[in-house]
Amino acid sequence: MQQNDTIIALATPSGAGAIAVIRLSGPEAIVMVDAFFKSIHSKKLASQKTHTIHLGHIIEGSSILDEVLVSVFKNPQSYTGENIVEISCHGSSYIQQEIIQLFVRNGARIANPGEFTLRAFLNAKLDLSQAEAVADLIASDNKAAHQIAMQQMRGGFSNEIKALRDELLNFASLIELELDFSEEDVEFADRKQFEELLQRIIKVLKHLIDSFSTGNVIKNGIPISIIGAPNVGKSTLLNALLNEDKAIVSDIAGTTRDAIEDEITIEGIKFRFIDTAGIRTTDDTIESIGIKKTFEKITQSQVVLYLIDASKVTSETIQVFNTDIRKIQEQYPDKQLIVVANKMDQADQTFIETSFVYPHTLFTSAKSGLGIESLKTKLLEFVNTGALRNNDTIITNSRHYDSLLKALSDVQKVQQGMDAKLSGDLLAIDIRQALYHFGEITGEITSDDLLGNIFANFCIGK
Amino acid sequence: MQQNDTIIALATPSGAGAIAVIRLSGPEAIVMVDAFFKSIHSKKLASQKTHTIHLGHIIEGSSILDEVLVSVFKNPQSYTGENIVEISCHGSSYIQQEIIQLFVRNGARIANPGEFTLRAFLNAKLDLSQAEAVADLIASDNKAAHQIAMQQMRGGFSNEIKALRDELLNFASLIELELDFSEEDVEFADRKQFEELLQRIIKVLKHLIDSFSTGNVIKNGIPISIIGAPNVGKSTLLNALLNEDKAIVSDIAGTTRDAIEDEITIEGIKFRFIDTAGIRTTDDTIESIGIKKTFEKITQSQVVLYLIDASKVTSETIQVFNTDIRKIQEQYPDKQLIVVANKMDQADQTFIETSFVYPHTLFTSAKSGLGIESLKTKLLEFVNTGALRNNDTIITNSRHYDSLLKALSDVQKVQQGMDAKLSGDLLAIDIRQALYHFGEITGEITSDDLLGNIFANFCIGK
Repeated sequence: MQQNDTIIALATPSGAGAIAVIRLSGPEAIVMVDAFFKSIHSKKLASQKTHTIHLGHIIEGSSILDEVLVSVFKNPQSYTGENIVEISCHGSSYIQQEIIQLFVRNGARIANPGEFTLRAFLNAKLDLSQAEAVADLIASDNKAAHQIAMQQMRGGFSNEIKALRDELLNFASLIELELDFSEEDVEFADRKQFEELLQRIIKVLKHLIDSFSTGNVIKNGIPISIIGAPNVGKSTLLNALLNEDKAIVSDIAGTTRDAIEDEITIEGIKFRFIDTAGIRTTDDTIESIGIKKTFEKITQSQVVLYLIDASKVTSETIQVFNTDIRKIQEQYPDKQLIVVANKMDQADQTFIETSFVYPHTLFTSAKSGLGIESLKTKLLEFVNTGALRNNDTIITNSRHYDSLLKALSDVQKVQQGMDAKLSGDLLAIDIRQALYHFGEITGEITSDDLLGNIFANFCIGK
Repeated sequence: MQQNDTIIALATPSGAGAIAVIRLSGPEAIVMVDAFFKSIHSKKLASQKTHTIHLGHIIEGSSILDEVLVSVFKNPQSYTGENIVEISCHGSSYIQQEIIQLFVRNGARIANPGEFTLRAFLNAKLDLSQAEAVADLIASDNKAAHQIAMQQMRGGFSNEIKALRDELLNFASLIELELDFSEEDVEFADRKQFEELLQRIIKVLKHLIDSFSTGNVIKNGIPISIIGAPNVGKSTLLNALLNEDKAIVSDIAGTTRDAIEDEITIEGIKFRFIDTAGIRTTDDTIESIGIKKTFEKITQSQVVLYLIDASKVTSETIQVFNTDIRKIQEQYPDKQLIVVANKMDQADQTFIETSFVYPHTLFTSAKSGLGIESLKTKLLEFVNTGALRNNDTIITNSRHYDSLLKALSDVQKVQQGMDAKLSGDLLAIDIRQALYHFGEITGEITSDDLLGNIFANFCIGK
């Protein structure tokens, strides 16, 4: 996997902007740029200190491609651990292309997705889970996801794993040492201490494994379905929920992200609405709860909003609603159900407020904004963010989750082996397996396939 | 217009990428970042040299926003001439927003479009036409436009204007000096030399004014209309023309610009197809040449491609075609007409090739690619790129064009005044007017309105 050529890529988003940054990394990066860069002081980059910036022109023959700022990072003091040059040029797509093409014609190779970070990993600038956190960090679009990615990138998670692995490795060595002295029947590894260690490892692993459901939900958003009859105000409710979020974004001109109409972020937690478009195409009333689409929506979601038009509820129909609510609760006991009686501004308030027996019923007017804040509070209540608040390590990566499950299984096998008084050589096999799976997470154990898979999901230029 | 606060903006395109660059400029830029940046060496940015880069974290309270590289540029050695800090952060929209918001909460102001360049102009880092060239450079999407913008940014055009203005100013001073000594009837300004200067100025101005039509076409693309009956292969021809251009772009992953289906660039010159979608909705054959839409298309274009299905031309219909071609030529004598006999692979080649009497007839098969290169060569032939090839100064900005026209008119008035033996005080008025219009171009004469208009067209962050 290790390659010694010089790679190039656009590091900033494509499209026009004030500036764009083109990044080269590799042994020849500085020499390569020197051949086409004329600094205003006529000094060569190779003679400059690391972490310095130089104004000048990218010139090919007699033609000036651009006036640029060039940043020099010298091996090993750079992101990749190699020589890096970053060219900050005017943000025209044409100029970006011309500069990249110029260096490709002169020996650089277009970087693969994530190849800069891959090189950083191969040069031991960061471990594998930290490298993966870089991609998560770039993809993070809310506070919680950002916090988890940042923690992982700073090594919190891998340090924990590495510490456990080191302790386990230590015991493994002692047990294997016993094998060398097997005729003498000595025990270098204190079995009692070892059992305590195994218990501690199992506790940590279970905790990490449990955190995955929280982590997954934080990374991808908590799935919410809205069910209810047509025209009860679903889109108005969505807009009311989205409103505040949008206002914050538009405060910062130039950073407006793409409008994601079906996601809202409440206090840094992302909620994701499922298939809200589809619901309008079918007569999706509670009577037709048997409809496959409604089933699917509920099954995929963690929180179900059952939206009711309060202005149309009568003493005749209220029993039907209460029965339906009970049915949903019975059929989906693991889903968080919130009943939202909407259009309260047009309803008989006292009658409505006393008619619903389900405790998690909220009374809103999406139009006037009434009850929207309460709904947000309710949504947050339903999310287990305890782990997040306590600054616990949270797993968000399914690869780590898999390896942790395998490591847990291995460690449990070791524990059972201990209980069954298995011999050291048999224990050692399972311990080695556990060590292997720990190592997979931090990248002490890798394969080209694994690395290929991980870095293929990166963006180009990182 | 001059403001002394510290401004902030995202300098790279919005959206997710490997990295994003946030730029602060103003007297407090370095101090402001120092308050939230913890370098890995715990050194303050204020104590660092200009043009240096520092790795560290943006931290708010106990929360780490991002690991970043911070570049420091110290007044006056920066783009704006003020202190500048550029924060290179991970390219998540969330992180970009959080960092910008952090500094906005702590005294920075979101920059207006072009405000960094405006400050550069106000601090005399570049003149007004150079500042305008920055926006042109960012917008440039082909070689010719890029070349003109680069030349203008490097001051080629403004130096020419400034030199003429200085000479004219010199004469104006001498003539105004005469006024002070009017009783003595002396002539400090040599009238013959002055007439020569005026003639020289008029020649340069006319040349520049003439270049505007070329410049405009280069900047905006040369408008081409394709006319012809339905199903003669218009979209296949367009695709064939576009093909090569696209292939080049897709070579460079990550720099792929937005597909512009109705523009092609041939040897750096942009051609722009007019309303090619509309043509399919009407029976747009040559018999219906009276159709308003066809008229409009031809009127708006500089080059007309008359596309004919060669496989359907017979000895009966060929006369009709030749008559129609003659009619178009007569009706639109100033348009470049190219007849394209398409589907030659399905046609009687000898018959077709000998049947068309119009000299600019090309024989193509858009499907097989036959004749596409000849068509491109023909298109280039029809473009007056002489000025471009000779590295002449070319005007692309309508504001400059207006000022040059006014300056020309003023100088011609001065010339007429000389012929009419007008007195010095009357000449001086027109000379002052001419000087004013020269000064408008380079920005020696400005108003807040003018600057507001110019920089409003910039992107944010530049």
